[in-house]
Amino acid sequence: MSKAVFYHAGCPVCVEAEQVVVDYLDKSKIETEIVHLGTERNRIEEAERAGIQSVPALVIGGNVYHINFGASLEDVKKG
Amino acid sequence: MSKAVFYHAGCPVCVEAEQVVVDYLDKSKIETEIVHLGTERNRIEEAERAGIQSVPALVIGGNVYHINFGASLEDVKKG
Repeated sequence: MSKAVFYHAGCPVCVEAEQVVVDYLDKSKIETEIVHLGTERNRIEEAERAGIQSVPALVIGGNVYHINFGASLEDVKKG
Repeated sequence: MSKAVFYHAGCPVCVEAEQVVVDYLDKSKIETEIVHLGTERNRIEEAERAGIQSVPALVIGGNVYHINFGASLEDVKKG
C-alpha cells in the first residue's frame, strides 16, 4: 500500500486542506499519516529533506504536493 | 456524492498531480472530472470564476486547492 504523509502547521489553510485529504483519499489504496509540524517539531527536518517548502503539503511516494499556501517551512522552523 | 473538478493544462507539474488525484481519490465518495484547459478553452472562464489562479488545481465543494505550480491561469488564457 502507498503511504501519504500530510504535513501541516495548524493554520486555517492547513486545516481546510487536511479535511480534503482525510475525507477523500482512498483508504483502501493509501495509508495516510497526518503530521502537525507545530507540535511535532522533531519532524521538521524530515519534511525539509522530503523537499517541502511550505505547508500544507502532501508527500506521496517521494513526490511533494504543496497545497495552496499556509506558511513557509522557514516560518514553521522559527515557530 | 461530492464532486471534484481537477483543472490542468497538460504541463509536467499538472500531469504528476493528476496521477495522484486519479489514483488516490476515493471514487466511492467523490466523483472526479478532469478538465484540460489547454484543449477545453471554453471552460477557462468557469475556472476563473471558481477562484483558480494557477494550474493544476482541484475544486471540491467550492474550495480551490492549488497543487504546486504549473502555470498561471493568465498564461493559460494567453494559450
